[in-house]
Amino acid sequence: MAEAARERVWITEVGPRDGLQNETSHVPTEAKVAFIEGLVSAGLPQIEVGSFVHPRWVPQMADTGEVFAQLTRSPSARYVALVPNLRGYDRAHAAGCDAIALFTAASEGFTAKNINMSIDESLAAFARVAERAHADGIAVRGYVSTIFACPYGGRVAPEAVAAVVRRLRDLGCYEISLGDTIGVGTPAEVRRLLEVLLAEAASDDLVMHFHDTWGMAVANVAQSLELGVRRFDASAGGLGGCPYARSATGNVATEDILYLIEHLGYDTGCDLEGVVAASDALAAHLDHPLASRVYRAVAAGGARGAHG
Amino acid sequence: MAEAARERVWITEVGPRDGLQNETSHVPTEAKVAFIEGLVSAGLPQIEVGSFVHPRWVPQMADTGEVFAQLTRSPSARYVALVPNLRGYDRAHAAGCDAIALFTAASEGFTAKNINMSIDESLAAFARVAERAHADGIAVRGYVSTIFACPYGGRVAPEAVAAVVRRLRDLGCYEISLGDTIGVGTPAEVRRLLEVLLAEAASDDLVMHFHDTWGMAVANVAQSLELGVRRFDASAGGLGGCPYARSATGNVATEDILYLIEHLGYDTGCDLEGVVAASDALAAHLDHPLASRVYRAVAAGGARGAHG
Repeated sequence: MAEAARERVWITEVGPRDGLQNETSHVPTEAKVAFIEGLVSAGLPQIEVGSFVHPRWVPQMADTGEVFAQLTRSPSARYVALVPNLRGYDRAHAAGCDAIALFTAASEGFTAKNINMSIDESLAAFARVAERAHADGIAVRGYVSTIFACPYGGRVAPEAVAAVVRRLRDLGCYEISLGDTIGVGTPAEVRRLLEVLLAEAASDDLVMHFHDTWGMAVANVAQSLELGVRRFDASAGGLGGCPYARSATGNVATEDILYLIEHLGYDTGCDLEGVVAASDALAAHLDHPLASRVYRAVAAGGARGAHG
Repeated sequence: MAEAARERVWITEVGPRDGLQNETSHVPTEAKVAFIEGLVSAGLPQIEVGSFVHPRWVPQMADTGEVFAQLTRSPSARYVALVPNLRGYDRAHAAGCDAIALFTAASEGFTAKNINMSIDESLAAFARVAERAHADGIAVRGYVSTIFACPYGGRVAPEAVAAVVRRLRDLGCYEISLGDTIGVGTPAEVRRLLEVLLAEAASDDLVMHFHDTWGMAVANVAQSLELGVRRFDASAGGLGGCPYARSATGNVATEDILYLIEHLGYDTGCDLEGVVAASDALAAHLDHPLASRVYRAVAAGGARGAHG
C-alpha cells in the first residue's frame, strides 16, 4: 500500500558553526570534516560549515577554509559559510561555498555589542556583500538574532523583527533565519511574532532558529510548525550547550526536532540514526556529554524498543 | 490597573516520590521534609510525599512515614501518598495523608512486570482500597502508566487507556494521572489520546504526567493545554533524570512547565524562584546536577536579564 505523501520540512544543520563556536574544546579539522560529511550522508540538505570571521574573535572557526578544502561535497546539500564583511566574503567565495549567511539582530543593543555597528550600519555593509555574492552566483541567507529579547535591552517587539526581515528580503536573501539567541521565548512569543511576520512574508522565506536555554525550543518548533513554518535551524547533538553547565545555551538538537517533526507526520528527508552516528563521532572531541535527549535515548538503545 | 483574571492551572509536585525513587543517592529524611515544605511554600497545591510500598522494592521510600511525621503541614496543600495495596493503605492512613494514589497501567505487559498483576487484578485490588479510603474520608487519585507505549509491549491504543480511565473513575478517583512512562510521546500522540479521552471525561478529571526521556515533555504540556487540560504532574529540578546519563528518564521539571504555563498566560499560583530554591537545597544530596533547564538558567542569573 502506498504511503500518503508527507509534507516536507527542511532542517539546516548549524552545529559545525553555531554549535562548535560555542564549545571550549579544540575540535580538529578532520573531525569537523567527518562530522559534516556524516550529517550530509544522513540527509541534511543544508549545512552551515563555518565562518570567515577574524580568528581573534572566533578562534574555533579559524580553519573554516581548510574544512571547505577537505570536504567531499555532495550535490544533494548546500554548503553555507557565515561572513561578517567583504573581506570574509572574499575568503568564503575562494573556499567555494554555495551560500553565505549574513548576521544582524532586531535589537540595537545586541548589534552594538556583538558586531559593533547599529542595525542600519550592518544592513548597509551587507548590501555591498550581497550585491557581490549575487554577481558571483552565490546565494545569500540572512540571520536576525534576538527576535524575542536581547541580553542588553530587554524585550524586542515583533514589529522590530519585521522591519529587519523586510530589509533582508530587499537585499535578496533566499531565506531569513530568526534566532531566539538567549532562548527565552515560549510558544506564546512564537505565535505573537509569526502572526506579524506571516502577514507579509511567505512561510518559505522564514526559518526558525531556537536555543534551548530555558527548555522551550522543542515546544517552539511544534508551535512554529502549527503556524505554517517549514524551515528550522538545529545543531546535531545539541552542540554548543552543556547539560551540566549552570546555563545550557545550545541550539535545539537536530535529533530532538527530527524526532518531533517526523512523529508529527512530516518528512525531513533525514535519517535519525545517521545523525546520531555523526554526533557520536564528534562527541569524543568535546569535554562534556551531548545535550540532546533523543541522542542519549537512541544511544541507550531506546529507538527500537519504544516505538517499534 | 487591574490585571485580567488568568485561568488557573494546577501542578502536582511528584518529585519527592516519582523523582526521588529514581535517584540512586540516599537523601536524608530531613532533606526530604525541607524539600516538601519549600515546595509548598512556593505555592504547589498538591504534593506526592512518598509511597508505602515494601522497602525491599523501593528502598528510597522506606522513610515515607517518618517524612509525614516530621512535616509541618500547610492547609493550602494536599499531601498524597502512593499505596500499592491494603497494607500500604493502612500505613498511609496512619501517617495522615490527605489522599492516596493507586497505580496501574494501560498495558498488560507493564502491570505484569511492574506490579505482578493483570490490569483487571490491579483494579479489583484497588476497589477494596478505594472503598476503605472513601469510608475514612481520604481522597483517591488514580495513575495510568504507559499511555502511549510500553517498554515490553510496543504501542498502546488510546482506547485501552480510555477503558482504564473509565474504571478508575468508577472507583471514585477525584483525578486520574496519565503517564507517558517511557517518555516517547510527541504532541501527535497527545492529541490522538486526548481526543478520545475528552470525548467522555471532563478535562478536570485528567492530569498529564510526562517524562522527558525523548525531550518532548514541554511540547506535550503545551499541546495538552491547547486541548483543554489544566492539570499536570511535574518534578522539581527534573528529579529522576540525570543530564549526563545515556538516557534521562526524569519527570518533566516543575520549573520548566511553570515557565511555559505562566508565559502562556495561565496562573499556577506558584513562585518559580521558590521552586528553584527548594530544588537547589535538595541538589546537594544528589550525585549529579539537576536536569531542569529553567532551574539552571535561573541559577545562572538569567531570570531577570531575560524577561525583566
